[in-house]
Amino acid sequence: MAPASIVNSSKSLPHRKLKIGVVLSGGQAPGGHNVISGIYDYLQQRASGSTLYGFKGGPAGIMKCKYVELNSDYIYPYRNQGGFDMICSGRDKIETPEQFKQAEETVKKLDLDGLVVIGGDDSNTNACLLAENFRSKNLKTQVLGCPKTIDGDLKSKEVPTSFGFDTACKIYAEMIGNVMIDARSTGKYYHFVRLMGRAASHITLECALQTHPNITIIGEEVAAKKLTLKNVTDYIVDVICKRAEDNYNYGVILIPEGLIDFIPEVQHLIAELNEILAHDTVDEGGLWKKKLNDQSLELFEFLPQAIQEQLLLERDPHGNVQVAKIETEKMLIEMVETELGKRKQEGKYKGEFKGQSHFFGYEGRCGLPTNFDANYCYALGYGAGALLHSGKTGLISSVANLCAPVEEWTVGGTALTSLMDVERRHGKFKPVIKKAMVELEGAPFKKFASLRDEWALKNCYTSPGPIQFTGPGSDAVSHTLLLESGFQI
Amino acid sequence: MAPASIVNSSKSLPHRKLKIGVVLSGGQAPGGHNVISGIYDYLQQRASGSTLYGFKGGPAGIMKCKYVELNSDYIYPYRNQGGFDMICSGRDKIETPEQFKQAEETVKKLDLDGLVVIGGDDSNTNACLLAENFRSKNLKTQVLGCPKTIDGDLKSKEVPTSFGFDTACKIYAEMIGNVMIDARSTGKYYHFVRLMGRAASHITLECALQTHPNITIIGEEVAAKKLTLKNVTDYIVDVICKRAEDNYNYGVILIPEGLIDFIPEVQHLIAELNEILAHDTVDEGGLWKKKLNDQSLELFEFLPQAIQEQLLLERDPHGNVQVAKIETEKMLIEMVETELGKRKQEGKYKGEFKGQSHFFGYEGRCGLPTNFDANYCYALGYGAGALLHSGKTGLISSVANLCAPVEEWTVGGTALTSLMDVERRHGKFKPVIKKAMVELEGAPFKKFASLRDEWALKNCYTSPGPIQFTGPGSDAVSHTLLLESGFQI
Repeated sequence: MAPASIVNSSKSLPHRKLKIGVVLSGGQAPGGHNVISGIYDYLQQRASGSTLYGFKGGPAGIMKCKYVELNSDYIYPYRNQGGFDMICSGRDKIETPEQFKQAEETVKKLDLDGLVVIGGDDSNTNACLLAENFRSKNLKTQVLGCPKTIDGDLKSKEVPTSFGFDTACKIYAEMIGNVMIDARSTGKYYHFVRLMGRAASHITLECALQTHPNITIIGEEVAAKKLTLKNVTDYIVDVICKRAEDNYNYGVILIPEGLIDFIPEVQHLIAELNEILAHDTVDEGGLWKKKLNDQSLELFEFLPQAIQEQLLLERDPHGNVQVAKIETEKMLIEMVETELGKRKQEGKYKGEFKGQSHFFGYEGRCGLPTNFDANYCYALGYGAGALLHSGKTGLISSVANLCAPVEEWTVGGTALTSLMDVERRHGKFKPVIKKAMVELEGAPFKKFASLRDEWALKNCYTSPGPIQFTGPGSDAVSHTLLLESGFQI
Repeated sequence: MAPASIVNSSKSLPHRKLKIGVVLSGGQAPGGHNVISGIYDYLQQRASGSTLYGFKGGPAGIMKCKYVELNSDYIYPYRNQGGFDMICSGRDKIETPEQFKQAEETVKKLDLDGLVVIGGDDSNTNACLLAENFRSKNLKTQVLGCPKTIDGDLKSKEVPTSFGFDTACKIYAEMIGNVMIDARSTGKYYHFVRLMGRAASHITLECALQTHPNITIIGEEVAAKKLTLKNVTDYIVDVICKRAEDNYNYGVILIPEGLIDFIPEVQHLIAELNEILAHDTVDEGGLWKKKLNDQSLELFEFLPQAIQEQLLLERDPHGNVQVAKIETEKMLIEMVETELGKRKQEGKYKGEFKGQSHFFGYEGRCGLPTNFDANYCYALGYGAGALLHSGKTGLISSVANLCAPVEEWTVGGTALTSLMDVERRHGKFKPVIKKAMVELEGAPFKKFASLRDEWALKNCYTSPGPIQFTGPGSDAVSHTLLLESGFQI
């Protein structure tokens, strides 16, 4: 990581010994340890005699006052390393009045001047509420957020990207590139690759821009165009048929993890199934199906048998259908196979089809951070230290000019409230940070859309290879960030 | 790749213009393009005016005389790249008298002085038979083999490793390392990782030596100890229970792709099922089960329902059970879950278990070759050129002293027959190159066996990170090769 000499103005701050707490919240993202290292180094260098506490196991660590005092030796082995295992993480939220009370008690007990919450949209919403709460109670504890998520869906004009996105995409792109070369070398498989990212399709889009697959499904486009599962299947099958005419019986297809959440008809079917299954038994004869509306019945019959059974049999503790457990890539392979069979019978398809399914997920959350993420995280942490030192609260640490060399980055803070909208949740209006979805009018999607037809039929595969830490390309920035910052790729 | 100045003796060979053919056979392995580049460069530098033909799509390209003449421009973009897409590969074999005849016609038509077969055990067996055949027919075409397979099961005293093994293992080890850090950071998942390699468990063993998982199953040990599926399950469950006592409800478990092929009782069950399913129908009431012998019935009842159904329903075109389609990692998760449930009821287990399944396979076959594989392949190819130039046939290109710096490697050839045994296949005695299995008395397994108990209970995870092409570690050799060469790790 580069030295964070960027926060020069803090030199003039009066010397204070600070007591700071830090917490990792939610799913892992490469670089989290460097945020903590950045905070620690700021305190060491510019507020010596300060103390840094790491809350263990996520927000629960704040509520239960479970922490470790971080020192040089403790932090050292985690610098520039992936994972969150230095203090671990958790998915608890500080929501109820009792939980806010517990948090208050902890910050009072530890006499905290500041608390840094490293997390995604929900955690930063939480950070904002905590800041407000402490301020209203006249507690001195300032609260800052830090933008973390491999999904890339926490961003705004001032927060150009969340950390971890760069590394995760590069790890997935390496694997996709390898599979592409395999597809072309073997000449007989269609690889259906499902990529992590349930809510937004940023990862899928970035990986497509890096590798040029034949087909890429972007959830936000499926939702905007109100596509059905049949539409998506037909699109894939059309490309496969056209490629077969050129004797290409292979290819690579990227699918976002959350695809079926984007398809309105699937949501309707699930809702109806949850209702039916809650009140009726499913009879072997299939009489229960009469309770589905026409469109849902048609969709249900269109689904492969294994998926039908999964929908009927596997339920969560609340009795609901478990959509998250559906392996979308395998479902699509089956549906594509069936449709290709029909076209073959009609004489419209003469190729051979073999599908191979992949899910790239956990491999990307804890990899060694890229140089970009290592530097970005260190700057976020160092900046958070400076913001706390200068008395700020309710901000998210942010770094600008990220496409330039590190020396030209600028570090600052943005009001968490500026990222927030009011949403109705459980019947109440609540201020929340909205997830940033893929913008169909944004530069990354438009770039992709302008090229995808060529990628579909020609083989423009690009295999980026493994992440490098030295040499050419080792400081490359994600295509999404470049395009969103107004650069061409 | 380093310059291949190592074959100095060939300088004294008389100048000849050679016509050489090269073919890639079987599954992809990183580095294949460099073998071809090595042959090409040898011919350019030491037998100028020579011609190199690449047969397309594997051995079928020889039989059908489908080829491309390779030149500098054609080869250039593939140097140091993964995949076999320069001329592609195929799984056909030259076996019948008619097929040998076709091969003869091709080498005569192209007036070939030599043919280099880049492949695994079967392909090198084939190369040996072709060499014999051409010699017996007084054809001038010399035939050489080259040791290729990511599985690492083509090796002997003179051929210390097959190319591709190094890269594939490092790619898988990167992913395993990432998953390990994820497991430790999250603290709630057991990751069951199935690794490519159907016949031998070298990949699994090498990845274990690189990453130190909690549990590693080695197929050859399972076979030698005649373990049952229940034994394997119990071993895993025992470790999980012991870890739960230390509050570790997470871990990483490596499983070789071919695990169930190593379990004798599974082979018996499959054989009986194939017999029964060929002659009888499977009745809903389960009367057909009476035809299974006691041990097979017990095993069948022990299998998760999904696997039972898969065994009964999914059959290949010959009506046989499709063992290869069984997702062993998912099967083990279910069996472990069931057994843990029992132990929980008995009060012997108080932890929580969540399994996550992974299959790392296609990602590793076409990655960018490591420096080791890039150099090794180039040396194999350059050496093959020199062997052909000096009139050799029936040899496999081999490089020795591979643990030393490249400058100290020595290149030569080994008689293919020295790698062969006589095996009975389809009722006839046939000379074949036997697959090199994991030796339970060999240094790699013994090293692993001496450490696995510590790895099981403590968390000694090592995350090697992405393959690097420059800087420290970029020239590292696989642990298997080091240990087999008498070095310590």
